[in-house]
Amino acid sequence: MTAHSVRMRGFTRYTTVEDALNRLLARIGRVGPETVPVTESLGRIVYEDVYSPRDVPHFDRSAMDGYAVIAEDTFGASQHNPVKLRVIGEVAVGKPPSLEVARGEAAQIATGAPIPPRADAVVMVEYTKRVNDELEVFSPVTPGQNISKRGEDVRKGQRILSSGRQIRPQEETMLLQCGITEVRVAKKPRVAIASTGNELVDIQTPPGLGQVVGTNSYTIASLVRVYGGQPEILGLFPDNPEEIEKAIDDALKYDMAVFSGGTSVGKYDYLPDLLKEKGDMIIHGVATKPGSPTAIFFHRDKPVFCLPGYPVATMIAFTVFVAPAIRKMLGAERLDPRVFVEAKMSRKVASKLGRRDFIRVKIEETAEGYLAVPLRAGGSGIVSSMVNADGMVEIPENVEGINEGERVRVALFPHLVV
Amino acid sequence: MTAHSVRMRGFTRYTTVEDALNRLLARIGRVGPETVPVTESLGRIVYEDVYSPRDVPHFDRSAMDGYAVIAEDTFGASQHNPVKLRVIGEVAVGKPPSLEVARGEAAQIATGAPIPPRADAVVMVEYTKRVNDELEVFSPVTPGQNISKRGEDVRKGQRILSSGRQIRPQEETMLLQCGITEVRVAKKPRVAIASTGNELVDIQTPPGLGQVVGTNSYTIASLVRVYGGQPEILGLFPDNPEEIEKAIDDALKYDMAVFSGGTSVGKYDYLPDLLKEKGDMIIHGVATKPGSPTAIFFHRDKPVFCLPGYPVATMIAFTVFVAPAIRKMLGAERLDPRVFVEAKMSRKVASKLGRRDFIRVKIEETAEGYLAVPLRAGGSGIVSSMVNADGMVEIPENVEGINEGERVRVALFPHLVV
Repeated sequence: MTAHSVRMRGFTRYTTVEDALNRLLARIGRVGPETVPVTESLGRIVYEDVYSPRDVPHFDRSAMDGYAVIAEDTFGASQHNPVKLRVIGEVAVGKPPSLEVARGEAAQIATGAPIPPRADAVVMVEYTKRVNDELEVFSPVTPGQNISKRGEDVRKGQRILSSGRQIRPQEETMLLQCGITEVRVAKKPRVAIASTGNELVDIQTPPGLGQVVGTNSYTIASLVRVYGGQPEILGLFPDNPEEIEKAIDDALKYDMAVFSGGTSVGKYDYLPDLLKEKGDMIIHGVATKPGSPTAIFFHRDKPVFCLPGYPVATMIAFTVFVAPAIRKMLGAERLDPRVFVEAKMSRKVASKLGRRDFIRVKIEETAEGYLAVPLRAGGSGIVSSMVNADGMVEIPENVEGINEGERVRVALFPHLVV
Repeated sequence: MTAHSVRMRGFTRYTTVEDALNRLLARIGRVGPETVPVTESLGRIVYEDVYSPRDVPHFDRSAMDGYAVIAEDTFGASQHNPVKLRVIGEVAVGKPPSLEVARGEAAQIATGAPIPPRADAVVMVEYTKRVNDELEVFSPVTPGQNISKRGEDVRKGQRILSSGRQIRPQEETMLLQCGITEVRVAKKPRVAIASTGNELVDIQTPPGLGQVVGTNSYTIASLVRVYGGQPEILGLFPDNPEEIEKAIDDALKYDMAVFSGGTSVGKYDYLPDLLKEKGDMIIHGVATKPGSPTAIFFHRDKPVFCLPGYPVATMIAFTVFVAPAIRKMLGAERLDPRVFVEAKMSRKVASKLGRRDFIRVKIEETAEGYLAVPLRAGGSGIVSSMVNADGMVEIPENVEGINEGERVRVALFPHLVV
């Protein structure tokens, strides 16, 4: 079956999203690790479980500004019957305590300072009154009160991060607090990107009648970055077998390759035939709208994607297939890092049985929660529908549409990136 | 009122979050623009409205693979009574059409190819049967059907992006499709970061008894990146007036400065007094838990933040105050770019009237939607509570707590970053 015959006859059979994902992800392996400074690890995926080499905190410390005391001394203290203690000095911050607290005594202490020997609680400054060395305590404390115990946050040897965790500022902080300054993270999968089509002109060239600006490579490169990969744009390739074969050979030097057609493919679509010669075609045609002309190949263990050429279809097919492949290569604990919010559909949307539809929606906030407003469909060439959208609603294969007012899950487009 | 007296007596009055934000944001101006290549603009904030210099698409094109026809010729066509047309040739992709369609004729056309003169519709290939030059059409089309009209996505002169929009892959695609390869975005605000405290050691040094690893600068730097700023770490400064004055003078060379105490501040807290000498103190002490010892100053138009030293308090105070300040400087349309999801509280959490509490929660998925599971409070030194958390629930000042099963809004921590 040549590409021509497929395109001009229509696909004879479409693979469901679920089947396609199963077949795809089953063959994807993890990339190797690399060691990076923790201070440059933001957004990276932890390669292997990380254990703390120390207790955090590594000494008992005061959780409040106040006075270190022996708790028993304060029992029975009240506003009307304060307990009187003698202040013997102050525990300095940042060094070992130089004094010891005995019965009837108190030591001034600031938040974070080490608890001096024999003291077992801290009275908050708010519950005291001090005149020279005499301290009145107006409220009792129990042993351990207002003390952060050694190892309270993390115990030596404890697992602090699991393999697959994506590093946010708090994971970075945790590693550094434990004295870890380098971390093994998954290498960023290197993703080759190429677009094919005689009609394509580069982004600097004003397109003539019939020509189209080749923006897909840039769209794909940014999506690769968002999902944790390292894009490499190979360029635009005209529809001729020699050029396309060259592009394929180049692309197979990377961990993954993503091709996208020009706006049109049709009878000049040599790419699938050439890829089939070089590896296995595992999917050609998926039951989705948009994005159905997606094809997926494997060349040994390397996935090669052919995404449809229309920008909206490119972005959606990327999100559905390429993104989880990148995340699986990374060993990420969440293959789909998007946030899902619940919303009420603002109007009815029809769909076809047996196909998964991806509806672009804008989210509006109402007193009763989120409202999902479907944007005019307008075909997969309409980039404004993606620009105006906050996310997508999936209509499953076994459903004929969504009614007005029905509750749906909206997958939000990734937004925060640096 | 000296820092010592404040810390050792407690704050006499706390500012509410709302008041503090109003006072802060009222004085924040926008940073200037810079021009960047669109292909490197991911995550940036658009500085001024952008208008398209061209129609997109810039010619009428086929939305399907099939045959360009004169719609009227197909009226009445059906499976049993196909209309017969003569195929006069093919419209090539990527160049102006070389033929013209007359009554009774059809031209083979692929998706994206320009519609030839006089044709006004495209019949999908699925509804045709072709033998040599003879085409049978089994289904009628209306004028305009399966044609993407010139300007259907974007009209020349149309506003395509508004000032303040954060650029995602789709915004990048839109700009490139319109022939725009450079875009004016807000400069990244340059944020100076310094930590003060005699107890702090750098991240490479094992801390002695009483000492603490100075991780806050790195935490803050990553948060600055996440929210769109450019961090500059000045370092760790001991608690002495000369060193701190030097740090302040350095910090004031940037667009914004963020200081954080060591784990403890207490009587050696020279920073607020010195900052007060150099500018206006607009807030000292906010009614939050954690994060209450936050102070905000202005030196002319530059905001200077003093965040509490405990890591959790640092992160939360940053999110509440510094993040919206950065976003306002950027002119971002959303001052708070976090995603909010609705969830059911898994258990009761108490709080104090007059104070805004920030509860770290883990999100679990259930059949009835999200469940927000509050993590053990454990004080603001417990970094694990942030690592285990997916987001935060705010308990407002006028509420004494949240009941089990109550519906809450969870602000998710930013997750996807590259």
